[in-house]
Amino acid sequence: MAISRYVGARVRRKEDPRLITGTSLYVDDLKLPGMLYVAFVRSTYPHARITRIDPAPALEMPGVVAVITGQDLRKWVKGADLSAGEGTAGEEEEGAGAVPQVDPLAVDVVRYVGQPIAAVLAEERYLAHDAAAAVQVDYEPLPVVTDPEEAMKDGAPQLYPQVKNNIGVRWDHKRGDVEGAFAQADTVVKQRFRNQRLSGVPMETRVVAAAPEPLTRGVTVWSSTQAPHWSRDAIAGALGLAQSQVRVIAPEVGGGFGVKIGVYQEDVVLAALARHLGRPVKWFETRSEHMLVTNHGRDQVVEYEAAVRKDGKILALRANIIQNLGAYPKGLFLPATTGTMLVGCYDIPAVEIHAVGVYTNTMAVGAYRGAGRPEAAYYIERMVDLVADALGLDPAEVRRVNFIRPEQFPYTTATGERYDTGEYEKALNRALEVAKYQEWRQRQQEMRQQGRHIGIGMASYVEICGFGPWESATVRVEPSGAVSVYTGTSPHGQGLETALAQLVADELGANFDEVVVHHGDTASVPQGNGTMGSRSLVVGGGALLMAIERVREKARRIAAHLLEAAVDDIEFADGKYRVKGAPDRALTLAQIAGAAYGPGLPAEIEPGLVATDFFAPPDEVFPFGTHVAVVEVIPETGEVKILQYVSVDDCGPRINPLLVEGQVHGGLAQGIAQALYEEVQYDENGQLLTGTLMDYAVPKANMLPSFITDKTETTTPLNPLGAKGIGEAATIGSTPAVANAVMDALKPLGIKHLDIPLTPQKVWAAIQQAQA
Amino acid sequence: MAISRYVGARVRRKEDPRLITGTSLYVDDLKLPGMLYVAFVRSTYPHARITRIDPAPALEMPGVVAVITGQDLRKWVKGADLSAGEGTAGEEEEGAGAVPQVDPLAVDVVRYVGQPIAAVLAEERYLAHDAAAAVQVDYEPLPVVTDPEEAMKDGAPQLYPQVKNNIGVRWDHKRGDVEGAFAQADTVVKQRFRNQRLSGVPMETRVVAAAPEPLTRGVTVWSSTQAPHWSRDAIAGALGLAQSQVRVIAPEVGGGFGVKIGVYQEDVVLAALARHLGRPVKWFETRSEHMLVTNHGRDQVVEYEAAVRKDGKILALRANIIQNLGAYPKGLFLPATTGTMLVGCYDIPAVEIHAVGVYTNTMAVGAYRGAGRPEAAYYIERMVDLVADALGLDPAEVRRVNFIRPEQFPYTTATGERYDTGEYEKALNRALEVAKYQEWRQRQQEMRQQGRHIGIGMASYVEICGFGPWESATVRVEPSGAVSVYTGTSPHGQGLETALAQLVADELGANFDEVVVHHGDTASVPQGNGTMGSRSLVVGGGALLMAIERVREKARRIAAHLLEAAVDDIEFADGKYRVKGAPDRALTLAQIAGAAYGPGLPAEIEPGLVATDFFAPPDEVFPFGTHVAVVEVIPETGEVKILQYVSVDDCGPRINPLLVEGQVHGGLAQGIAQALYEEVQYDENGQLLTGTLMDYAVPKANMLPSFITDKTETTTPLNPLGAKGIGEAATIGSTPAVANAVMDALKPLGIKHLDIPLTPQKVWAAIQQAQA
Repeated sequence: MAISRYVGARVRRKEDPRLITGTSLYVDDLKLPGMLYVAFVRSTYPHARITRIDPAPALEMPGVVAVITGQDLRKWVKGADLSAGEGTAGEEEEGAGAVPQVDPLAVDVVRYVGQPIAAVLAEERYLAHDAAAAVQVDYEPLPVVTDPEEAMKDGAPQLYPQVKNNIGVRWDHKRGDVEGAFAQADTVVKQRFRNQRLSGVPMETRVVAAAPEPLTRGVTVWSSTQAPHWSRDAIAGALGLAQSQVRVIAPEVGGGFGVKIGVYQEDVVLAALARHLGRPVKWFETRSEHMLVTNHGRDQVVEYEAAVRKDGKILALRANIIQNLGAYPKGLFLPATTGTMLVGCYDIPAVEIHAVGVYTNTMAVGAYRGAGRPEAAYYIERMVDLVADALGLDPAEVRRVNFIRPEQFPYTTATGERYDTGEYEKALNRALEVAKYQEWRQRQQEMRQQGRHIGIGMASYVEICGFGPWESATVRVEPSGAVSVYTGTSPHGQGLETALAQLVADELGANFDEVVVHHGDTASVPQGNGTMGSRSLVVGGGALLMAIERVREKARRIAAHLLEAAVDDIEFADGKYRVKGAPDRALTLAQIAGAAYGPGLPAEIEPGLVATDFFAPPDEVFPFGTHVAVVEVIPETGEVKILQYVSVDDCGPRINPLLVEGQVHGGLAQGIAQALYEEVQYDENGQLLTGTLMDYAVPKANMLPSFITDKTETTTPLNPLGAKGIGEAATIGSTPAVANAVMDALKPLGIKHLDIPLTPQKVWAAIQQAQA
Repeated sequence: MAISRYVGARVRRKEDPRLITGTSLYVDDLKLPGMLYVAFVRSTYPHARITRIDPAPALEMPGVVAVITGQDLRKWVKGADLSAGEGTAGEEEEGAGAVPQVDPLAVDVVRYVGQPIAAVLAEERYLAHDAAAAVQVDYEPLPVVTDPEEAMKDGAPQLYPQVKNNIGVRWDHKRGDVEGAFAQADTVVKQRFRNQRLSGVPMETRVVAAAPEPLTRGVTVWSSTQAPHWSRDAIAGALGLAQSQVRVIAPEVGGGFGVKIGVYQEDVVLAALARHLGRPVKWFETRSEHMLVTNHGRDQVVEYEAAVRKDGKILALRANIIQNLGAYPKGLFLPATTGTMLVGCYDIPAVEIHAVGVYTNTMAVGAYRGAGRPEAAYYIERMVDLVADALGLDPAEVRRVNFIRPEQFPYTTATGERYDTGEYEKALNRALEVAKYQEWRQRQQEMRQQGRHIGIGMASYVEICGFGPWESATVRVEPSGAVSVYTGTSPHGQGLETALAQLVADELGANFDEVVVHHGDTASVPQGNGTMGSRSLVVGGGALLMAIERVREKARRIAAHLLEAAVDDIEFADGKYRVKGAPDRALTLAQIAGAAYGPGLPAEIEPGLVATDFFAPPDEVFPFGTHVAVVEVIPETGEVKILQYVSVDDCGPRINPLLVEGQVHGGLAQGIAQALYEEVQYDENGQLLTGTLMDYAVPKANMLPSFITDKTETTTPLNPLGAKGIGEAATIGSTPAVANAVMDALKPLGIKHLDIPLTPQKVWAAIQQAQA
């Protein structure tokens, strides 16, 4: 590719040739000699005591090698820490009950349908599944609770004796004169919102393989994870091994969306089996298992109340957030993350928030695209529209009245977040302009008169990106000038290899096609925190730039020697290392690299051209934007058609607009799906109703419009790139934008609020009721 | 292991549990899905023109996938640079003829028996061999030359048109008043010596596997090599790939002895096949192939002449060295290395050396344990004994008269080597004392009178170790305090993982059992030059110490923060990081590592506890020693029995005496084998006579005595450890010691010199002739 400058260009993805041609290797492609296949015996009860496990029928099947129960496993594994989640790194949680330790295979009590009880090892994969089905488990059922509001009540079934009222975490926060604000308010707007439970549904489910490692006398684990170093640390801890004895490899990973952060029970079990049976083992999560036992997202209810002045100014907020944690600690960070983002883009001086996380007999809830921020954005953006409605104002105007103004940054919210930079009104104005908002308002009037239910919705969002505590990068210039990069982030579809290679090409003078970005192997990457929370470019790219800077300094020293100039007279410009003011005296990176390793290097210059650096961002960054959706509701079916969708996102400078747009498109699909289609549902007995993709409505292409994407660009001073991250943004903006549009369409019918997902059934029923 | 200080202790090898239990993985253990097995069609002629290759009979066999010829391969590969050898790194050779480029598969002309002509790929290994045998090759024989002295003559068969008289390299050197010295000499001692051709015979032969690599669009090569980075660079060059696109992995390697330095034709062919056929491929060298086509060692003749004063003082040397290079450039460095070491431990002021390397129709000769130094030591040590004999002096006395004295160091020889430090007489005295030399001389007299042929031989050697240009090391302290080390050396049996872990334990305060030393993978090791020439501990250990020092400095900064002390007040002592003068205020490495990655690190301390460093030694180091052998020759059979063997070696400080003794024991076996048993032989038609271990006499345990090992200890100022290396030393000292002993035993019979190996047949024949 002949590109003079890569950063900012629409560079095609380095990743695609191998993905498109099917030559990439995923964990399930791994086949090792003597490998055994693992299937899990899983609880069919949401809450029960195990009275007996009889492996005999399975063990009688030829080719079945072993059945390992929780009691067996306790000899090899202490409890696993499964609580890692997006946004937890380096943050402290304000807890309530003690955090329960989880046995990777249940001992005595099961607490959700699907909980692993025993691992069956067999020579063939399908045999392992058949044998798992043959293991007989006797249960003594216990009372079940799936609704967190029920679970908090005295007398409700208790999941853990040490956790009173099932409240696993509590976050309370009050700032400003809330009572005064509510007393002075012209209006108080109240609403109860529900943010439904969702499933991650990456194309590749979770897959784990493990093999004993003779070098370290430990274990190598291949896992479809977003954070191999975290998995390494957790597995070492669970198995009582040194961290140097555990190697975790995340080869190609087919999507994560947050649900592949942190270890699962299966990772720990496979590692223990490989180590103690001395054979390689592999487990592949079926799609049904994925729906059942890969962590879910969202699942909150909130009682929300705003004190409002008649011009639309929100004076104070009160919120009572109840987070369904599911059956074990995974999403302990969610109440606090939701709480701190609850004011959105707005300058709201007083808040009172009470948030709890509550255990129930359902699958654990944890990180899922945005994790806490989409919930918060949904609440406040719906609230602003309800305020506009209550006061008869244009929702854009209410936003303008409340926005934090550019000159107020850095701005600390009443909830305690320190926003770096923002131009919220500019993004809103741009979105309204691109969306032809005023024209649409006019058309809406006309079409309503024709009996058509047109709705226009907008949402202005802000979110947290770029979690620390740090990220690492190594840049190694090979003797030929080719470059190998090692990043502690662990991309799994985002295209980060391309973005990082662009930085290396421009900032080091490397040949883009000879830059290879390695990741996802704890053996070769110095250290890392993985890919989540839009931290990869922001923090990982920052670390890369710092390592590049070190390499460049070394290159300048070598160039000075070769060109017989002073180091201070060498500059890196136009892709070469040049003597200032002498255009002919210049060296390429390859020429310098050759000298860096070759003979003839003077003694005062240490050989080599490699550097490792860590970037610890001083704080998180806050991308933002405004989305505008235009929808039509078909009253006869309750169906929602999206007529136009405009997404204006501000993630700061865009290293590769193609990649940013990819993230935005995918994020919109996922956020719109929450607004209209997807919901994980349990029945009252704790049985999952949405266990297949026939029941859980992931949208198809024909259910989505062609998106119009646009941008504003506001840099942050908090990292070397000035960038803010784009991984979750579109998901966060789109759910409230579409919900607001649908509610706008239904307003003439007197319908004030419906909980998402706004499925045809729900919308149709509401219309029927309204018209009745 | 509860050891207070690891360095210097007899620490058991970290490597052994995995090796003893058979859980280690060698290249041949690698089985990848879809893997094809490769066998080579090899030349049956030593010199011929290929007139036709007919692959049809092979391709008709079911399961045979392809037959690739040299012409096919030229589309994918330009000529391979096969000339890498021990001691070449960073050194310049003084050449004669142009260096021929070698096609990995022969095109048109074959030049030695065994030269690869075509690669056959099949689904099964044995099928590949059968199919290779079925490929029909028609040859037009060309005249053959196997003797380098014949090959140098005008009119001899020419291997390469551009190489006149087959002389591939020439090294001429003259210093001092040679003519004057010979004119003044009391005696001139002349001898022609032959240093026979040897084979490496590692337990694991060469094995290569290769697979296409989707990440880099390049190739991953697994090779049983001593220098994976050199292989990486050579394969990238041959295939026209960036170095970032080629990954070379040396997993466990079962011995090298120098013959696994640098790429071979097979490495390049396998890499090209994997890349262009898009399938994993593997080739396993049979033992017969090993004898035929893995580079041989030694194979020199020298005409040697010493000008001697009557007190034994050697005034000048003249030598004419002829190195058989075999059929292609691999050992171009051997004439110069032999030449520069030709004066041994002695202060000889004048030398005139003419050395040539000559191509012949035999397998290439290259690095083999010591590579040039054993040849030189053999010549000078035999010469000293011949001088003693000529003058009627004790050989120990002649050595003492000639030794470079301790106060002369650093000492530059007339041949141009700069010896760092040495106490040659001390080592000789120690060896004679341990060997009870004077007692043995007395017993020798007595036993001779009983008709027994007892011989006492000694050899004082000095050799070159610690080749540069540099080595790299990365030290990574994991958050738990466990340590991962990455070294650019590539140990293959030496126990270096143990030695380096000892350094880390003592110098960093790490838990020895939690130190894992990684090597042999170009993807995870920053850069490297591999293991050869006893450079691993000397240069690789130096790099490690430098990296440790960086990590320790960082650890002190973190400790200062945690202990609220000034950085200058923190010292590393007794395994902990301590506030000077406050015994209670101390932190372990694990405590510091936890803080290094955790939250709460102050902004001025960059996170992480990892460092990479490179060590470029200012010069080579020169270990030395004296060996004393007592032998008895059985005249009826010609058999040589070793009655006592004393090895006193000075390699400087010993990090692990157990490992040093292991190297000495193995080296003695190999050096004694050259003196008595081993020889690669070709017939005059260029056909290998010693193609199996029935013909090539590797010694068995019962053919060797129990060794008595001892030491002196002289440090070098040239590296941080002060160490000198022990990998080749015992091989170098033992060949002349045993040869001298045998000749001493035969002296009463009037036998002055026999060329090694002193096989029963040769000795018996000489005795018969002497007595006739």
